[in-house]
Amino acid sequence: MNQPAKIKHALTTTREGDFAQWYQEVIAEAEMAEESGVRGCMVIKPWGYGIWERIQKLMDEQIKAAGVENCYFPLFIPLSYFAKEAEHVEGFAKEMAVVTHHRLIGDGKGGLVPDPEAKLEEPLIVRPTSETVIGAAMARWVQSWRDLPLLTNQWANVVRWEMRTRMFLRTSEFLWQEGHTAHANRDDAMEETLRALEMYRAFAEGPLAMPVIAGEKPENERFPGAVATYSIEAMMQDGKALQAGTSHYLGTGFASAAGIQYQNKEGQQALCHTTSWGVSTRMIGGVIMTHGDDDGLRVPPQIAPQQIVILPMLRDTDEDEALLAYCEELRKALVKQSALGEPVRVLLDKRPGKATQKRWAWVKKGVPLILEIGGRDAAGGQVSVLRRDRLWREDAKPNFVGQDKDAFLGQATAELEDIQRSLHAEATVRRDAQIVRGVDSLDALAKVYADDQKFPGWVELGWSRPTGAALDAVVAKLKALKLTIRNTPMNAAKPTGTCPFTGEPAVETIYVARAY
Amino acid sequence: MNQPAKIKHALTTTREGDFAQWYQEVIAEAEMAEESGVRGCMVIKPWGYGIWERIQKLMDEQIKAAGVENCYFPLFIPLSYFAKEAEHVEGFAKEMAVVTHHRLIGDGKGGLVPDPEAKLEEPLIVRPTSETVIGAAMARWVQSWRDLPLLTNQWANVVRWEMRTRMFLRTSEFLWQEGHTAHANRDDAMEETLRALEMYRAFAEGPLAMPVIAGEKPENERFPGAVATYSIEAMMQDGKALQAGTSHYLGTGFASAAGIQYQNKEGQQALCHTTSWGVSTRMIGGVIMTHGDDDGLRVPPQIAPQQIVILPMLRDTDEDEALLAYCEELRKALVKQSALGEPVRVLLDKRPGKATQKRWAWVKKGVPLILEIGGRDAAGGQVSVLRRDRLWREDAKPNFVGQDKDAFLGQATAELEDIQRSLHAEATVRRDAQIVRGVDSLDALAKVYADDQKFPGWVELGWSRPTGAALDAVVAKLKALKLTIRNTPMNAAKPTGTCPFTGEPAVETIYVARAY
Repeated sequence: MNQPAKIKHALTTTREGDFAQWYQEVIAEAEMAEESGVRGCMVIKPWGYGIWERIQKLMDEQIKAAGVENCYFPLFIPLSYFAKEAEHVEGFAKEMAVVTHHRLIGDGKGGLVPDPEAKLEEPLIVRPTSETVIGAAMARWVQSWRDLPLLTNQWANVVRWEMRTRMFLRTSEFLWQEGHTAHANRDDAMEETLRALEMYRAFAEGPLAMPVIAGEKPENERFPGAVATYSIEAMMQDGKALQAGTSHYLGTGFASAAGIQYQNKEGQQALCHTTSWGVSTRMIGGVIMTHGDDDGLRVPPQIAPQQIVILPMLRDTDEDEALLAYCEELRKALVKQSALGEPVRVLLDKRPGKATQKRWAWVKKGVPLILEIGGRDAAGGQVSVLRRDRLWREDAKPNFVGQDKDAFLGQATAELEDIQRSLHAEATVRRDAQIVRGVDSLDALAKVYADDQKFPGWVELGWSRPTGAALDAVVAKLKALKLTIRNTPMNAAKPTGTCPFTGEPAVETIYVARAY
Repeated sequence: MNQPAKIKHALTTTREGDFAQWYQEVIAEAEMAEESGVRGCMVIKPWGYGIWERIQKLMDEQIKAAGVENCYFPLFIPLSYFAKEAEHVEGFAKEMAVVTHHRLIGDGKGGLVPDPEAKLEEPLIVRPTSETVIGAAMARWVQSWRDLPLLTNQWANVVRWEMRTRMFLRTSEFLWQEGHTAHANRDDAMEETLRALEMYRAFAEGPLAMPVIAGEKPENERFPGAVATYSIEAMMQDGKALQAGTSHYLGTGFASAAGIQYQNKEGQQALCHTTSWGVSTRMIGGVIMTHGDDDGLRVPPQIAPQQIVILPMLRDTDEDEALLAYCEELRKALVKQSALGEPVRVLLDKRPGKATQKRWAWVKKGVPLILEIGGRDAAGGQVSVLRRDRLWREDAKPNFVGQDKDAFLGQATAELEDIQRSLHAEATVRRDAQIVRGVDSLDALAKVYADDQKFPGWVELGWSRPTGAALDAVVAKLKALKLTIRNTPMNAAKPTGTCPFTGEPAVETIYVARAY
């Protein structure tokens, strides 16, 4: 009897074997990022940064379409701004990079030290987020109801000192966009908060092909100072949740601290209601853990820096010229086409090196379609196509499909669109299969997350929405199981039954999960 | 006899009256930027940031077209990296922001202070430029001649502590791109250095409509550690020079300090030759001082966030609806067209407010074409067009030109292209008229820059290219006249005559000027 053929995967670590190690290997082998030698900071390499550029471009279009205007605010925030915030914000976070000097001098031993003569009168903080400094600007810009709503956004780097870092997911410096808006009243601000949330939800499910649950965070998980915090939550392949974007309704607390007020139509001064919302390079971590497989990354075509790579099988002979001409013709025909609303992005990879090595490098990078073209293909008007999401044949060989060139050209964009859809469908099926329902006691919950459960996923349950000390008690019970409440999904039907934590009637649906 | 009609300009300060004050007023009135309340840092407002986004987009296309790949490197650079640089670089700059702590704690009096327990073992420097940290990455990435050239770029914020700041021209934090490349030999690196220089020259003369002289800086003006520094120099309307971009050939010095070496085809280890090149938000200051007039900014259409603004003259009557429909139809017809290689950018400004106030706001922002549309225009199929570069009629009234709508639609893109050309031509004529030649002595030079000369421009002269101490003497003489050598233009004919500084035969042409 024949053994089933064994696939020889491109990575040495499998998801099943060691998910955390696999994640690091994908990032290294796809050449997305690496440790920089600077504590907690990474170098984002061209393939990783190219994905971020795609995310920026598509998200920025959405932000602008909503009438939000991009600005740029200072990297440094005076210490006193935070003192003000610390007063009105419980749970104010203090791990930040503090600038105390503005000059270096020689230490007399060939080294350099901060110049004691150049100590700043007031230390500067490297922005961890920009509510305070943008609030100060808004206080200058808003005078009358005519100035509202004030809708601003910035693309920037921010710094939060982290003791334990993981590339893309938690780094001391990261890249993000932060939207900050001011409104005349609660309803307008809440509408904006939910508009941003829906923008993120649609962006995750669309370009990222990453299914998410949009909902409200419980009060213990709110952004410090926020009245309500909403998130999108994605499930990674190890069943853990990843918070991939947040949107906050800040009430009038920040406006009060910063003095953002306006003269209303009746001629009276009133405080603005503000919001803030952001997504970051963390999304790339989500894409890796949603779509990656044991052969590396798989990038959804909409955010792939290159959607199709053409690999000519060069042999250093006279025939190479005809082969390259054929490939160039193919490239030109492809870039004239549009897929997913944009011109197709195609790279003809002419670099030196063995074709199979180059193939596996692109497989690990997750480019959606790879075309390998040999001299015989060129002569016969053929292409050999490898879909990254259908990488292996049953006989464990790479699933190249030979096709007539014109036939391929006629269906290339449909193929890209199909990959985008397929990745989303695959992730949705997996996510949905890993949501456990019917958990009606703490014991049942503990059983889901027992030590012998490898990737236990999420539990969806109805709870009584306790607050204050009662909530703290629930959070403590969950913490003992290494669990957190992710969010209350938008528009969920009211649950029946009783709350497994309090025994009271359930009034609201929540997701409970382990999380990044 | 009639007096000639007197124009009532939109700004209160004229260029002639007080150029520095005029510059600040343009920035304020065009709502481009403002002081942030954080020392040396500005807030870039939507119109200013929109111009930067245009610059980024167009420049990034050029950078990518040259095969350079975008990356992102850490904001923080460990102090020891600079100690290494200080050793090999004479003239190492020391004014930098130094991070010494990573946490804040309460001071017991309601304030916050850096936590003494959270002092960093090694201080971190906020990047003033990234040669050192990118060099460390290059040392990891380059192994063999096959890895060369290595062409990287990043778009980032950088910080250089400045005592005297001026918005866009000199701020402690600014935005820029920095290209960093490594090559196998001097020729390849020099070719890249000059490619970047030419990219900047063409970019300034093209999208920015700003004439520049591309050339090599004298040795005293080289980037510390560089073997050769090249720049593009633009002339502002006050005759001063603005260095608007630089490109450096760094030889093997940085490679040696960072350990960037490769195995050549003969199997031997060799040091790389590196380059770096950058342009920044400073370019926006150059655009203001090249194209601004006494009515505010004039933005070249290629970098204008909006190229055409449609202003309906709303009257809060039933007729507004038909007027808005007419304007929307106009907008739709315009955005379908292409000018200067891109879809036309059009804003229909429906915000509340008086039409004339809104008109002058857009004039001060410098939008290339303003269309004012009244009810009668809508009924009669007309438009009233104001070209920002032909703002006033001889009778001192705004130069609105009434036109048939279809006639305007047929020529709108040609009009935008003509404005782009005209701004460049106007600036070139002015620049060329302010270059003084035939200066053959230090006395003659001093006369050009005598106190009674308002905007004396540049002097082009032949010099003997002294080096070392002889050059220092020349620099000192120039400094006494507040002058600097800008650059030696590329491909200039060899001059005749004698050097006004040394009396020796002139061997090279240079530009001498006051500068920002």
